[in-house]
Amino acid sequence: MNSVTKTFGILTGGGDCPGLNAAIRGVCRAASTRYAMAILGIANGYRGLIDGDVRVLGPQDFSGILTTGGTILGAGREKPFDDIGGDKVTAIKECYHRYNLDCLVVLGGNGTITTGWRLAQEGLNVLGLPKTIDNDIVGTDLTFGFQSAVAIGTEAIDRLHSTAHSHNRVMVVELMGHKAGWLALYAGVAGGGDVILLPEIPYDIQAVARHLVKRAQAGKAFSIVVVAEGALSIEEAGLEKKERKRRREQTASIGYRVAKEIEEETGMTARTTVLGYVQRGGVPCAEDRALATSLGVAAADLLAQGKYGKMTAVVGREIRSVDLNVPAGKVKSVPLNHYLLDTAEAVETCLGR
Amino acid sequence: MNSVTKTFGILTGGGDCPGLNAAIRGVCRAASTRYAMAILGIANGYRGLIDGDVRVLGPQDFSGILTTGGTILGAGREKPFDDIGGDKVTAIKECYHRYNLDCLVVLGGNGTITTGWRLAQEGLNVLGLPKTIDNDIVGTDLTFGFQSAVAIGTEAIDRLHSTAHSHNRVMVVELMGHKAGWLALYAGVAGGGDVILLPEIPYDIQAVARHLVKRAQAGKAFSIVVVAEGALSIEEAGLEKKERKRRREQTASIGYRVAKEIEEETGMTARTTVLGYVQRGGVPCAEDRALATSLGVAAADLLAQGKYGKMTAVVGREIRSVDLNVPAGKVKSVPLNHYLLDTAEAVETCLGR
Amino acid sequence: MNSVTKTFGILTGGGDCPGLNAAIRGVCRAASTRYAMAILGIANGYRGLIDGDVRVLGPQDFSGILTTGGTILGAGREKPFDDIGGDKVTAIKECYHRYNLDCLVVLGGNGTITTGWRLAQEGLNVLGLPKTIDNDIVGTDLTFGFQSAVAIGTEAIDRLHSTAHSHNRVMVVELMGHKAGWLALYAGVAGGGDVILLPEIPYDIQAVARHLVKRAQAGKAFSIVVVAEGALSIEEAGLEKKERKRRREQTASIGYRVAKEIEEETGMTARTTVLGYVQRGGVPCAEDRALATSLGVAAADLLAQGKYGKMTAVVGREIRSVDLNVPAGKVKSVPLNHYLLDTAEAVETCLGR
Amino acid sequence: MNSVTKTFGILTGGGDCPGLNAAIRGVCRAASTRYAMAILGIANGYRGLIDGDVRVLGPQDFSGILTTGGTILGAGREKPFDDIGGDKVTAIKECYHRYNLDCLVVLGGNGTITTGWRLAQEGLNVLGLPKTIDNDIVGTDLTFGFQSAVAIGTEAIDRLHSTAHSHNRVMVVELMGHKAGWLALYAGVAGGGDVILLPEIPYDIQAVARHLVKRAQAGKAFSIVVVAEGALSIEEAGLEKKERKRRREQTASIGYRVAKEIEEETGMTARTTVLGYVQRGGVPCAEDRALATSLGVAAADLLAQGKYGKMTAVVGREIRSVDLNVPAGKVKSVPLNHYLLDTAEAVETCLGR
Repeated sequence: MNSVTKTFGILTGGGDCPGLNAAIRGVCRAASTRYAMAILGIANGYRGLIDGDVRVLGPQDFSGILTTGGTILGAGREKPFDDIGGDKVTAIKECYHRYNLDCLVVLGGNGTITTGWRLAQEGLNVLGLPKTIDNDIVGTDLTFGFQSAVAIGTEAIDRLHSTAHSHNRVMVVELMGHKAGWLALYAGVAGGGDVILLPEIPYDIQAVARHLVKRAQAGKAFSIVVVAEGALSIEEAGLEKKERKRRREQTASIGYRVAKEIEEETGMTARTTVLGYVQRGGVPCAEDRALATSLGVAAADLLAQGKYGKMTAVVGREIRSVDLNVPAGKVKSVPLNHYLLDTAEAVETCLGR
Repeated sequence: MNSVTKTFGILTGGGDCPGLNAAIRGVCRAASTRYAMAILGIANGYRGLIDGDVRVLGPQDFSGILTTGGTILGAGREKPFDDIGGDKVTAIKECYHRYNLDCLVVLGGNGTITTGWRLAQEGLNVLGLPKTIDNDIVGTDLTFGFQSAVAIGTEAIDRLHSTAHSHNRVMVVELMGHKAGWLALYAGVAGGGDVILLPEIPYDIQAVARHLVKRAQAGKAFSIVVVAEGALSIEEAGLEKKERKRRREQTASIGYRVAKEIEEETGMTARTTVLGYVQRGGVPCAEDRALATSLGVAAADLLAQGKYGKMTAVVGREIRSVDLNVPAGKVKSVPLNHYLLDTAEAVETCLGR
Repeated sequence: MNSVTKTFGILTGGGDCPGLNAAIRGVCRAASTRYAMAILGIANGYRGLIDGDVRVLGPQDFSGILTTGGTILGAGREKPFDDIGGDKVTAIKECYHRYNLDCLVVLGGNGTITTGWRLAQEGLNVLGLPKTIDNDIVGTDLTFGFQSAVAIGTEAIDRLHSTAHSHNRVMVVELMGHKAGWLALYAGVAGGGDVILLPEIPYDIQAVARHLVKRAQAGKAFSIVVVAEGALSIEEAGLEKKERKRRREQTASIGYRVAKEIEEETGMTARTTVLGYVQRGGVPCAEDRALATSLGVAAADLLAQGKYGKMTAVVGREIRSVDLNVPAGKVKSVPLNHYLLDTAEAVETCLGR
Repeated sequence: MNSVTKTFGILTGGGDCPGLNAAIRGVCRAASTRYAMAILGIANGYRGLIDGDVRVLGPQDFSGILTTGGTILGAGREKPFDDIGGDKVTAIKECYHRYNLDCLVVLGGNGTITTGWRLAQEGLNVLGLPKTIDNDIVGTDLTFGFQSAVAIGTEAIDRLHSTAHSHNRVMVVELMGHKAGWLALYAGVAGGGDVILLPEIPYDIQAVARHLVKRAQAGKAFSIVVVAEGALSIEEAGLEKKERKRRREQTASIGYRVAKEIEEETGMTARTTVLGYVQRGGVPCAEDRALATSLGVAAADLLAQGKYGKMTAVVGREIRSVDLNVPAGKVKSVPLNHYLLDTAEAVETCLGR
C-alpha cells in the first residue's frame, strides 16, 4: 500500500439532499485510489468536529452508496459562529489540528459553505461542495440535489394534471424554496403549471385570479398553481421583514393560504398538496449522480494540488472551482431576465404579475 | 359489419382514479369486438344523462387509453336522488329510454354504485364497476385505483425515510381515506411507517408519543407517521358526529394537527406532507390496469348474457359479480382482525393503540 | 431481555428477486420482538449450511432493509441432493444440529422449496417462503417478487408504445419465464401488448403474422409482441425435449428469434428488447413489500407454534400455509382457463393461436 | 383575433425521442399566442412535404402534449437528397411554396438537421431544433431526449446492481449510441458501471478482463459492463470500415458479443440486457421538458425576427442559436478530454483501455 499523502476530514451540513452520498463517494474514492489519502468521516456536520465524533473511512464505507438517499455521515445544522463565546470554533480548530488534517471538505448549502469560508478565514484549509435542492448557491450554475427535486415536483404536478377533470377545480402544489424559486420554476415549466409563484416575483392575486378565470372561460376544466414556499404577495412584499415573518408564522402553509385566496377571488374550488420533505429524499436522479460524482472528484483533485479555500462548481458545462468568498453569505435568486421565465410566459403560464 | 346486438351507455362518477380509462377500454373493446354492441359515452357522470350529453363511442375512442390517467368521459359528482322533486331521476330515465339503452354501465365508488342500484330499483338495467382509491366498496376484495394510490403513497414514504436524519425528527404524511384506512394501512406497511393512524382505530396520542419516544431512546434518529385523512383521536371518537364534523372543519388538515399534537407531547420537531390529489392521478400501476381491464371485460360478458343489476368484483383471485344491493349504501372498513394489522404490529409499527 | 425461546436459521436460495429482504425482515422482526427467538443468518443459500458460514442476526441487521433489492444473506444455487455421495446433505444436517436449530427457514423458488421439503423428509424442521418473479410455485396464489417484475416489464412496454410510430414496425420484448408465462401474461395485458407468447400456449407464427398484418391494414402503425423466455412454437412443442433444448441453446435469445420469424413472415421491420436481469432487481413494489412482510410474519407465527414442514402462502386474499409437499417438485403453469387469457383475447390481443 | 403575421410548417424527422411533443408545443404555443402565426403540421417528417400531407394546427392540438412520448406529427426517415433525380426535393420546394410558408421548422437529429441545411441552401427558410437521445449534434451542448434516455439507462443499471449477488457474475447492458458514447458514458457513471465501452475508445478486451478479475479478487461478487451500441474492439478499429460493417451485421447485438468475449477471457458467467427502443420512448424527464420547451420558444422568437437558417441550441447554460452549417454533416463525439471520462476513471471505472 502507498504511504498516506494527505489526511482530510469530510462532513455534510444542513438538511438532507439527494446526491450527498454520491458526492462523498466521488471525493473519497478519487482521494484514496488516485491520491492515496487518508479520510476521516465527521458525524453530523460541524457538530462532529466540536464533539470529536470522527472515524476513519475506508473503501467499504463509500462502496454501494452512489444511489442512496440521505448521508452516511449524518447531517447537522450546527452553526458554530453563532456561539458568542467562540468555544465551538475553538473546539473545531482543536479537533482539526488534533487529527492533523490537511483539509476539511464540507458538503452543504449556503450556511455550511459560509461557515466553511469563515473557518478558512480562521486559518483552516477548507474545500466546499455545493449541495442543495434550492439551487441557490452563488458561483455555481447547478447544485446537486436540485435536479432530483425538480423531478419529484414535476412528477407530482403530472399526477395532479389527470385528477382535475371536475370543472373549475384548481390544484395548488407547494414546493420548497424559501429564498429562491428555482425549484418551483423548473418543476412548474416541466409540469406545465398554469400559474407559478416565486419569491422573486411578488404575486398579485388579482392577476392570478384573472388568469384562472380566463382559462375556465376558455373551457379549460381546471388549472394547476405551483407555489414556492417563499412566494409572497405584493402586499407582503411591502411589509417590513419582521412583520412579514410574524404573519407567515401564523400560516400552516403558503399552499393552503394561496388556495384560500384563489377560492375567495374566483369562487372556484381549490385543493392543496404540500410535498414537504418528500422533495429532499430518496434516490438521486441520474444527472445529480453524475454531477455530484464529478464535483467530488474535482474536490479530490484540488486537495491533491493543495488548492484550498475553494468550492467546486459547475460553470456552463464545465466543472470548475471558485473561491469560497464567492458564495459565502449570499443567495442566488432567479434573475428576472432568466430565459425560463420568458419561456414560461411564452407558453401561457402566469407568473403572478 | 355485424348488426348491433345491444346498445348501452357508459359513465364515470365521483372523483378521478387511476384505471378508469383502462376499465372503459375493457368494457368497450370486448362489447364492440366480441359482441357487436353499440356504445354511448355519457359525459360527466350522471349529469350527462340529465343533460343528454352523450356521444357514440367507436374503436378509436378507446384505443391508446389503457395507461392514461383521468377519464375520457369526464367525471361528475351529480347525485340525482338528492333532488327532492325527482326531476333529475325522471330526466335520467327519459334519456335512457330515448336512446333505447339496453343497459347503463356505471364506473364509480360507493356513491355512484348506490345511485346505480337505486336506478335499477326504478327499472333500469344497470351494471357497476368498483372504482376508488379507497378500496372501501363492499362485495369486492379490490377496487381499481387502490393499488396505484398505494404505490404513490409508498413512494412518498420511501423518500421521507432518507430525509429524516436529524435527530428526533418526525415526518407526518397524510394520505387519503375519509372513511376507511386501507390506503394508509397498505402504504404504511409497504413504506415501513413507524406509526399508522386509521379511521377504524381511534388513536391515543399518548400511545403514539410513547412509541416515538421509545424509538428515539433506542437511537432511531427519526420516525414516520402515516395518517389517513379520516383518522380520529379517541376523544373525537367519543363526540357526537355533528360536533366532530364541526371541529374537523376548523383544521386545515389532519396531518398538520397530528404533527402539532406530537410536537406538544414529545418535544420533537414534526414536519408534514399532504399528498392530496396526487394520489388520485396519473398512470395506473400494472396491477390496476390488468384488474380494470378484466372487470371491464366481465361487465361486457354480463351485458351479453343479459345479467343486469350486478357489480363486477374481485373475490379472492377470481373475477366474479355481486348484486348491486351488496355494496349499495355501505362502506367497507378495514376489519379489526385483518392480517395486515397484525403484520404491522408484528414489525413494530404502532397503530395508535 | 427475555430468555431465548427458540433458535432458527434463515437462508435465501436461487436467484435474486425483489422482496427477499422485506421477507427476511418480516420473519426476523416478528421472531425476535414478538417471540424472543434467536436468529442465525446463513450465507449464500444451502451452501452456507454446508460450509458452516453462519452469523447471529440482530435487530440492526434487519433494520432499513424493507425496500432494498437483493438479499442481505447472499443467494446461492447449491442443490445438495444432486451430490451423489450424500456428503452435502450430511454436512447440512450436521450444521443444523451443531447450532441446535429448532428450524430452518428457507426463502426461495421451486428448487429451494423442494430441497427444503427433502430436508424435512430427512428429519429437519423446515419452513418455506415462496419467492420468485415467475409466480410458478404450487400452493400459493402469489409469490413475492412477481408483482415487482410485472411492474418493470409493463414500464418497458409502455416506453415501447411511444417509440413505434414508423409504419409497419414491430417491437418485440422478451420477458423472463422459462416454464410459466405469468409474468409475460400480466405485463402483456397491463402494457397492452398486441401479441403475447407464453410457454403454456405453443405459438403458430402464421397466426401471429396474420394478427400483425391485420393490425397494419387497419392503420395501426406498429405492434408490440411480448415473448416469455420459455415461449415455443408449435413445431418445437412437437419435438422431443432433448432436441428442443439443443436447438434453443443455439439461439442467443428467443426475442431475437421471434423478431426474425416475424420479419420473414410479414416483411415488417422488428426490433428487440431483452430486459434480462433488470426484471429481478431493485426496489420491490409496494404490494410485494406488504406481501413479503406478511408471509414473513406468518412464518414466525408457525415457528412459535411449532408447526413445521409448511410453506406460507397466499390463498385468495388470506395468508395461510400449505404442507411443503404441495409445492415440492412441481411448477404452477398458467391454467388454460385463467380469466386473464380470456381478458387478453377480449381486448384483441393475440395469444399466438 | 389578430391577423396572421406569418405561416410556417413544422415536422419531426428521424426516430422517436422523448421531448418531441414538448418542443412542438413550445414552438407552436409561442408562435400562435405571442406572434399570431399560422401553423401547418407536416406528417411523417420530410415525407409529408413530398406527399403534401399537411394540416392546420390549432391550440387544441398542442394542448396536453407536454408530457407525452412520441410525436403528434409522426416521424419519418425520408432523405429527399438521396433521390438522384431530385424529384423529392422539387416536391418539397413546391409544397413549401404552395402553402406560402415563411419558414420550415424541423425537429430532428443529424440527418434531419443536415437535410434542413441543404433545403436552406436551396433557398427555403429553415429553422432546426436539436433532437436525439444520442446527444451527438454539433453546436449544442445538449439535445432534448438525451437526459430522458440517460435516466432510463441508469434505472436499468440500478436494477442490475441488486441482481448480481452470485459470485463472479457479470451483467452486460447494451445502450444506444452508434456513433457517440454520450448515453453510455452518462448512464454508466450515474449507474456506477464498472466498465463502460464507448465508440470513441476502442476497447482492449484484455484490459476489460483484467479489471473484472481484479474486482473479483478483491471480493466484489459481480460487475456491471455498460456497452454503447457502437462500441468496438481495438481489432475492429483497425479494420476497414466496410469489413467492420460486414462483421457487425453478423452479430445479433454487441451486448451479447461482449458478454461472450468476457466469458471466454475470464471464465465468469455473463448475462446480457438489451434495452433497445425502450430508451427512445415514454414520458420525457423534467429536464428534457423544460429544455425542449425553451428551445421551441426560442425558435418561435427567431421566426418572428426573421432570422432563418439557424438551429436553436444550448450553449453553457444559455439558450442560443447557431447557423445550420455548424451541425450539418457532422457528429459530436465525446471528446477524449471530457471531464466525465476522467471522473469515471477516478471512481475506478474501466473505459476498456
